[in-house]
Amino acid sequence: MTVANDRFLRALERKPVDVTPVWMMRQAGRYLPEYRAVRKRAGDFMSLCRNPQLACEVALQPLERYAFDAAILFSDILTIPDAMGLGLHFTEGEGPGFRKTIRSPADVEALPAIDARDDLGYVMDAVSLIRRELNGRAPLIGFSGSPWTLATYMIEGSGSKDFRRAKQFMYDHPEAGHLLLGKLADAVTDYLNAQIRAGAQAVQIFDTWGGILSTSAYLEFSLAYMRRIVDGLIGERQGRTVPCILFTKQGGLWLEEIAASGCHCVGLDWTVDIGHARSRIGHKTALQGNMDPSVLYAAPEVIRREVAAILRSYGSGPGHVFNLGHGITPGVDPEHVAVFVDAVHEYSAAGHR
Amino acid sequence: MTVANDRFLRALERKPVDVTPVWMMRQAGRYLPEYRAVRKRAGDFMSLCRNPQLACEVALQPLERYAFDAAILFSDILTIPDAMGLGLHFTEGEGPGFRKTIRSPADVEALPAIDARDDLGYVMDAVSLIRRELNGRAPLIGFSGSPWTLATYMIEGSGSKDFRRAKQFMYDHPEAGHLLLGKLADAVTDYLNAQIRAGAQAVQIFDTWGGILSTSAYLEFSLAYMRRIVDGLIGERQGRTVPCILFTKQGGLWLEEIAASGCHCVGLDWTVDIGHARSRIGHKTALQGNMDPSVLYAAPEVIRREVAAILRSYGSGPGHVFNLGHGITPGVDPEHVAVFVDAVHEYSAAGHR
Repeated sequence: MTVANDRFLRALERKPVDVTPVWMMRQAGRYLPEYRAVRKRAGDFMSLCRNPQLACEVALQPLERYAFDAAILFSDILTIPDAMGLGLHFTEGEGPGFRKTIRSPADVEALPAIDARDDLGYVMDAVSLIRRELNGRAPLIGFSGSPWTLATYMIEGSGSKDFRRAKQFMYDHPEAGHLLLGKLADAVTDYLNAQIRAGAQAVQIFDTWGGILSTSAYLEFSLAYMRRIVDGLIGERQGRTVPCILFTKQGGLWLEEIAASGCHCVGLDWTVDIGHARSRIGHKTALQGNMDPSVLYAAPEVIRREVAAILRSYGSGPGHVFNLGHGITPGVDPEHVAVFVDAVHEYSAAGHR
Repeated sequence: MTVANDRFLRALERKPVDVTPVWMMRQAGRYLPEYRAVRKRAGDFMSLCRNPQLACEVALQPLERYAFDAAILFSDILTIPDAMGLGLHFTEGEGPGFRKTIRSPADVEALPAIDARDDLGYVMDAVSLIRRELNGRAPLIGFSGSPWTLATYMIEGSGSKDFRRAKQFMYDHPEAGHLLLGKLADAVTDYLNAQIRAGAQAVQIFDTWGGILSTSAYLEFSLAYMRRIVDGLIGERQGRTVPCILFTKQGGLWLEEIAASGCHCVGLDWTVDIGHARSRIGHKTALQGNMDPSVLYAAPEVIRREVAAILRSYGSGPGHVFNLGHGITPGVDPEHVAVFVDAVHEYSAAGHR
């Protein structure tokens, strides 16, 4: 199956494009009334993730409304620990949590290995279905949380203000900590490869909590394991590169190291100046990002001005996938998203001539 | 009055010292049982801040226990908006909040100018008393929140996950936003100068929330106003430099710009590698920081190893004030703080020979 719109994949390969491609992290989400309607039908969030038909429906919703250049699998970053038996659940307004947690080296030893195709079959079914329903309109992105990010939730049992337990675990039990991260890296590799085999045309690793670490701890506990995943990924499928995007929130200090991991693209949060990032990384990888999601609350002319500023900062030439610097937040006016997407296409054309 | 131990001031001036000086943000705090006892006597947190005798007592407590090289005024970063009539209060476990908030340009216009000596007399009384009671044992640091940090709380009414209201205010009302930040910069300048006249021998500006901004927004809304404050500060008193420390949490991307502000010292959070920071900034300013506060939960040998790693990364020579990369958190074993402080003195001696 060919992709009618392959700007996104071309930009990740740093090939010429007509306009800068754009998608949004969490583009299938609560800001859309049609998403909220399906979510209500499904019941809780995980029931929606586990139902391939409904997951497919919400994954395609943003592409019906907007000129997005990529779709992303609808799922959660924490499906792997859930498949390992930790019992993922969501509390309204409080985010994800686990019923069982990792608190000792024995807990790490006891963690079962998983087989993504069997244990996360509902994800692969969703990938296949979304890919089929997309029917070439846009490429499909698969994803997972990073090993460090999965580990923080598994040890803390939920999100945290200072991630004290997760950090303490690594200090108190360095061997068990590395064993845990290694098990997770293997599971994520297997999981992303299964998504690629099921139809994902690019993958993104979400390192949501790498940025809470010191530089040396980030390199040791987060980036090293993402590099291991990148090394193990299927690099090409059906004659086309399957690019990998690494996104560490608050990772702006470590862009050079992230770019040297072997990934095809570095995802930037909104704190980084994208032109500065480009001059630091050079042309080693593509860059994805990075408008502050809060800008979407502002007036249309402010949104357009900020899009233009980011395009200007990146400069001309390929290798840029436009995105927000983090997921879109609930409460944004859906009309503002149209302004955002259209501004990216409209203002970027000149830079690609 | 001479200062018997002036390592801290000498390090800020990048002059030779015998060992690296050390203090801790929030060193007078809940991890200390003697602090909790006084806090209980005082009632709520602001009653403690407003009582110069009790504020003095808790400010000196950490110096009784540990070999700290500086004391810091016991107060809150949000006293200025409180003095402007916004009604600061603290809710257990939820942090600070204001009874009145800034929601419109008219609210900004209506904000009264304050006279720090009159309107925040209790702070100056605490400064004078602590300085007198210190009796030269160690220098006294005064402080304030940064204009941007004060503005976020004034607009949001409390802490926030994404600071959407504060950012939106700046996008929707740029003139009123700058008017607000200008008023706050004037008030902070006056406030810090009053603290210096009352006896503070160095001052620190806490930019707790500058790091949530994009690069361009940080430069425009936060750093520009801190620079204005630095320009307006009393630079010398009683024949000695009064150094100013700028601390932007998550400000690691902007160290060069912060160092160019005219401040004497750049405070680093724990995500930055201090050796890398030194090579970026050169010898333009001193550096303060930057152990991850979470390390204090780990075993003594881990604490000592991390102290040694930071000293090694900074390298030899003056200009380093050891600190945590953020405030110490409640629940730390007070014995671990002794390990930390003693390790800094013990391990740094060789680098100053």
